[in-house]
Amino acid sequence: MPDTPSPAVLISEVGPRDGLQSVKAVMPTADKFKWIDALYAAGLREIEVASFVPARLLPQMADAADVVRHALTLPGLTVLALVPNLRGAQAALAAGVHKLTIPVSASAAHSLANVRKTREEMIAEVRNIVALRNEVAPSVPVEAGIATAFGCTLQGEVREDDVVWLATQVIEAGAEESGLSDTTGMANPAQVRRLFNKVRAAIGERTGAAHMHNTRGLGLANCLAAWDVGVRAFDASLAGLGGCPFAPGASGNVVTEDLVFMFEAMGVRTGIDLEQLIAARAPLMAGLPGEPVYGMTPQAGLPKGFVQGAAHV
Amino acid sequence: MPDTPSPAVLISEVGPRDGLQSVKAVMPTADKFKWIDALYAAGLREIEVASFVPARLLPQMADAADVVRHALTLPGLTVLALVPNLRGAQAALAAGVHKLTIPVSASAAHSLANVRKTREEMIAEVRNIVALRNEVAPSVPVEAGIATAFGCTLQGEVREDDVVWLATQVIEAGAEESGLSDTTGMANPAQVRRLFNKVRAAIGERTGAAHMHNTRGLGLANCLAAWDVGVRAFDASLAGLGGCPFAPGASGNVVTEDLVFMFEAMGVRTGIDLEQLIAARAPLMAGLPGEPVYGMTPQAGLPKGFVQGAAHV
Repeated sequence: MPDTPSPAVLISEVGPRDGLQSVKAVMPTADKFKWIDALYAAGLREIEVASFVPARLLPQMADAADVVRHALTLPGLTVLALVPNLRGAQAALAAGVHKLTIPVSASAAHSLANVRKTREEMIAEVRNIVALRNEVAPSVPVEAGIATAFGCTLQGEVREDDVVWLATQVIEAGAEESGLSDTTGMANPAQVRRLFNKVRAAIGERTGAAHMHNTRGLGLANCLAAWDVGVRAFDASLAGLGGCPFAPGASGNVVTEDLVFMFEAMGVRTGIDLEQLIAARAPLMAGLPGEPVYGMTPQAGLPKGFVQGAAHV
Repeated sequence: MPDTPSPAVLISEVGPRDGLQSVKAVMPTADKFKWIDALYAAGLREIEVASFVPARLLPQMADAADVVRHALTLPGLTVLALVPNLRGAQAALAAGVHKLTIPVSASAAHSLANVRKTREEMIAEVRNIVALRNEVAPSVPVEAGIATAFGCTLQGEVREDDVVWLATQVIEAGAEESGLSDTTGMANPAQVRRLFNKVRAAIGERTGAAHMHNTRGLGLANCLAAWDVGVRAFDASLAGLGGCPFAPGASGNVVTEDLVFMFEAMGVRTGIDLEQLIAARAPLMAGLPGEPVYGMTPQAGLPKGFVQGAAHV
């Protein structure tokens, strides 16, 4: 891979958090370390490594603090953790994470079902987490990701005004950025463009990442749509792990390998080496034997004559 | 589905040709009839029903004339057939097709491997087919689809100038339109936009359909890219049948169900009823027992609250 000055897009790998908490099996801690090392070796520089939730609820995340401590040894890596509440934020900050992400649902029904809090209560929780952060770790940015931004399996449509309102509220509560998540795989490209434009009109450069799912096959098209309207940060999961798959073959999260291939083929530098990225599937599969993996690019291989970094811009 | 004045996009179903000739099993003629009837019932109004090639080469297509005759009984359906040469065109026109499509490869290496003709010889073949058409069926349009327009598994890169040159040549040879095919699944959205713009600059409104593959997961993103630059006709295959899959799970052709869902969710009318389209998988599976089928939307189902035709435009 040729030298590149700096990536044009940030790919944030969420597999060790979003992926691992969605599967029943628990990946041993040592295997998590190997997998994260392989992701880092491929060039990923932001990884959501864990979720700080009670181990009785998510045994897959019981070693969150250990995983964070290991990830902190990798130079230049932004170590991100999901925290659903203040208690999780305390633990994550104590472990030394570089960045926090808080899921805040635009769907009232989903908010109650997912975190047993209203949207207003979650805005207050963001405010509390920001206050804690200001006190104990003022350099750690807080992201509040708007879940069910494009639709909800419980309530159906989610009003775009609700999404814009919530994004504005969490920024006012002190979060540094707010991204949009297609938690339920209901987004379409026209909606993605429209909603990101509306959110940017409201919160400007505090607009965060696009977190797209591939539930109905539109994951990459939705990422392209977000890219077209100026989004430059994308969540993705190696091998498409996680994201509430409905059925075998119907992966949830956008597949990191396919997303990176799309951008690199377009001439958009990701900073990630595709061959090493595909190689990072091996420690994932070793740590989760028998778990289904997704991704078209790894199956098909890179195209004949494909030279990363050589594409038109 | 609400009444719609007319579709904003033409989805051309290629499964009965591209799909069936790519699988080893031979679908019985009666099953082909049922499948085509179901596709028509879902609202598809252009179907590539057969390939007119010698039965010893493609036994799957031995009943091409019978299939055409059946499809001709469906009112308002454009019955399309692929013909690789003059002999095929003679048989297809004798059977009464409404439209011919001729594959012409932009890759010199692929052209020789696929049809044992140079690109120049294929341009001459287009001219011969047009002359025949002018004589025996002057109202039948001829499309020349540029295969390997975005890259070739044999020669690697295909020069964009070659694609523009070939599209210009086949139009000069008398073809009514020329579309672009990502035969090898190597296209990316930036390339799709650039190349369709170049081809349109050369042949204007004679620019034909986008025929995209999902080999590396970019099928829908590439269709979106083509839509963005004004393409309004798309080939797709029900259940992703055909298109040279590399491996299980790695479907070749863009899945009709997912493509129609994307457009309808965007508020772009296709004229196709999604539920009936998904129901058209049953006769396909009945006619090809055990054959793998693809498609994320059929697996996940339509989103809660999704009303076709109700989306924003």
